[in-house]
Amino acid sequence: MNKHVDVLVIGGSAAGIVAATTGKAFYPDKDFLIIRKEKEAVVPCGIPYIFGTLEGVEQNIVPVGHIEHAGVELMIDEVTSIDRAAKQVTTAGGEQVSYQKLVIATGSLPKVPGWLKGTDLDNVFTIPKNKEYLAGLRDKLQTLKNVVIIGGGFIGVEMADELAKNGCKVTIVEVLPHLLQAAFDQELSLRAEEILAKAGISLRLGEKVSALEGEGAVSEVRLESGERLKADIVILATGYAPNIELAQAAGIKLNELGAIRVDEYMRTEDCNVFAVGDCAEKFTFFTRIVKGLMLASTACSEARIAGMNLYKLSRLRTFGGTMSIFSTAIGGTTFAAAGVTENIAVDRGFDIVTASFEGIDKHPGTLPGTSKQFVKLIVNCESGLLLGGSVIGGASAGELVNVIGVIIENKMTIHEVLTMQVGTHPLLTGPPTGYPLLKAAEAAAKKLRH
Amino acid sequence: MNKHVDVLVIGGSAAGIVAATTGKAFYPDKDFLIIRKEKEAVVPCGIPYIFGTLEGVEQNIVPVGHIEHAGVELMIDEVTSIDRAAKQVTTAGGEQVSYQKLVIATGSLPKVPGWLKGTDLDNVFTIPKNKEYLAGLRDKLQTLKNVVIIGGGFIGVEMADELAKNGCKVTIVEVLPHLLQAAFDQELSLRAEEILAKAGISLRLGEKVSALEGEGAVSEVRLESGERLKADIVILATGYAPNIELAQAAGIKLNELGAIRVDEYMRTEDCNVFAVGDCAEKFTFFTRIVKGLMLASTACSEARIAGMNLYKLSRLRTFGGTMSIFSTAIGGTTFAAAGVTENIAVDRGFDIVTASFEGIDKHPGTLPGTSKQFVKLIVNCESGLLLGGSVIGGASAGELVNVIGVIIENKMTIHEVLTMQVGTHPLLTGPPTGYPLLKAAEAAAKKLRH
Repeated sequence: MNKHVDVLVIGGSAAGIVAATTGKAFYPDKDFLIIRKEKEAVVPCGIPYIFGTLEGVEQNIVPVGHIEHAGVELMIDEVTSIDRAAKQVTTAGGEQVSYQKLVIATGSLPKVPGWLKGTDLDNVFTIPKNKEYLAGLRDKLQTLKNVVIIGGGFIGVEMADELAKNGCKVTIVEVLPHLLQAAFDQELSLRAEEILAKAGISLRLGEKVSALEGEGAVSEVRLESGERLKADIVILATGYAPNIELAQAAGIKLNELGAIRVDEYMRTEDCNVFAVGDCAEKFTFFTRIVKGLMLASTACSEARIAGMNLYKLSRLRTFGGTMSIFSTAIGGTTFAAAGVTENIAVDRGFDIVTASFEGIDKHPGTLPGTSKQFVKLIVNCESGLLLGGSVIGGASAGELVNVIGVIIENKMTIHEVLTMQVGTHPLLTGPPTGYPLLKAAEAAAKKLRH
Repeated sequence: MNKHVDVLVIGGSAAGIVAATTGKAFYPDKDFLIIRKEKEAVVPCGIPYIFGTLEGVEQNIVPVGHIEHAGVELMIDEVTSIDRAAKQVTTAGGEQVSYQKLVIATGSLPKVPGWLKGTDLDNVFTIPKNKEYLAGLRDKLQTLKNVVIIGGGFIGVEMADELAKNGCKVTIVEVLPHLLQAAFDQELSLRAEEILAKAGISLRLGEKVSALEGEGAVSEVRLESGERLKADIVILATGYAPNIELAQAAGIKLNELGAIRVDEYMRTEDCNVFAVGDCAEKFTFFTRIVKGLMLASTACSEARIAGMNLYKLSRLRTFGGTMSIFSTAIGGTTFAAAGVTENIAVDRGFDIVTASFEGIDKHPGTLPGTSKQFVKLIVNCESGLLLGGSVIGGASAGELVNVIGVIIENKMTIHEVLTMQVGTHPLLTGPPTGYPLLKAAEAAAKKLRH
């Protein structure tokens, strides 16, 4: 069967939906179609919470009502090939769909370390964005309680936190010296490790897995040290790779990290084909180097830019590359960072000072529910530009890091931050006299003078 | 006795403390002295919480440890006169203190409406920043439960919310059609009124008080309609006036609203005398007109600017006037606004569009503790500049309004907001696909195109 649409989006997770609905809002006369494999798509960042806080997979589904409400059509099918010359795709269901503009939002797939033996054993899982697969893992976890998680990034840590709440005996094995080391400075990692250890999670840091072993099903994880960890279930939280098979087969250019090469407006070299989200290339904010960042928030930002600029460049990007803004909550404590960490700043060659301040997130501190709030800032010495900031605190730290993000995106100097206006309220924020972000800025300014 | 200090600060509430401690951090070789009347100063914005959430006045005291720790001296005494020619002040305790630089941070005093009869009756209270007085009011409220609050601004509303929690029968009488009308648009006021009414608070909006009546102690509040409200206690929450008697007696120039006239760096016409906080003049951010805004956050921002620039203008202000950033929590729901409200924008003559979006503050919305999050934006038509934003939501809205504040302070256009990067997390923020601030921006951009 043949069908024509003006704008075709392949993939219907966060980025695909936002590209289509934003596009439709800006080009209401065009018709938009999303083709995706999954009848129901899981909320990507919500996946760890399926295993503890939420009742199950059904509570973590991306609603489709607003897709239809936006006037975007949704087709459940799998695109098997793209013919760019004919501007047409073919699906597993036998459809031929032609397009004016194509948006590839095929996301990412869990990486399985090729060198690791035993990953094909039963009860070895990855964390894909696949509802049935995750429901299967959840079922197993009802009875199998010895869980070894390989990889101490966000997915590994959030899964561990949730599984421990749910009565599992959890071990995280991480080859780097600290958890979350790619995203956070040591102050944050150490505090997260402390919280997880207190929750009874065993942390094996700086240790490498050499093999998964068992008869049929996995039963042990062997470390390079020779030690063996008992495991009913192994979760490989070892990162994700861009899902680019379809694009690659269509001759669309990839970068050296295997992501789809795009320009500032998410256009591939074929100006009628866009790519957004985890499958698309990203450049870092300050140094403009290629980086493999995968965040739903970033994906949605790209999707908005693509959607608004499908037919003409009407919304110019006013910032350069992609800023990392990470946030998570571990054992009820928020950890968040925007821009570059101290490690990354040093690694990239920036001349920096760092300064930090620990205060409180309500005032007076006698108010119930007051948490400590720690802010660390990374400042370029001569320019005074804020390069990055980290926060440990209560729930409000999730938006406080966005305050830092907007500061960085506007290339504000620490001097501008010092005189900046913020709103405060006893029940909602740190005190006006000791708002931790401004006190950290003050400490950084002091260091810059010496 | 004679004493000399380099920098003398009169007043030791939020602004005075921040001016002195910031100044000391930037001019460590100078010696700093704060003179204040109160041995213990109450946290100004925390006052309403003394009457419900906190155990008492003792739980709402500004800590002094960090004043000493900063190397600033604190003297409990009352300055009774300033001799600017001699650069010296005299205190009630008989001290003569000479200075190089003087910072006046004398704050504000509750206004008692002069036309209102009966304000001298017993059990008629204002809300001054006075620990003993507030403790006295708190004691009375243990047994006297019929409370009429006159004035539906922040103090009136927050007091009502707390007193109702504490078993009082509370009525608010407000002459304007809505509560919090000076700070918030109608969407916010209506929702706040709904919450307060549900908590059993009686709201008399658009009604004027004509007299307080009683024998010795107040027993009734008479309205202009002739109706009488039973009252064991009346609280006058009818605003505050700059406390400028001392400055005025010293010949320091005031503005037409009775606040101390200052320049961009909080200097009075006498360049050795600064004024900060509620007693100092303020200009609005976009129109630069004189306005009587009193917020601890604003006071502290001014105090930082004064402190850093006491001896030389080393930290230039990069923004013009004072931005209103208001936030409060009523019945556990956060209300906040930054920049101008719709009413004010229209009133000042701005050509505007407004747009709003209601989403959620966690994702998926099945997560426990998810609140609705409403964002409204006010945008200047041709320039596209964001002039103001309002939020109703959970606790995170208190920092989300600071995200809006930084956007406004950087004079970002709605187009820049549309492509802006934010961080999201299931437990901490709205979803990346429907982050309410960005969806409201999208709705505003759509209106601007038509």
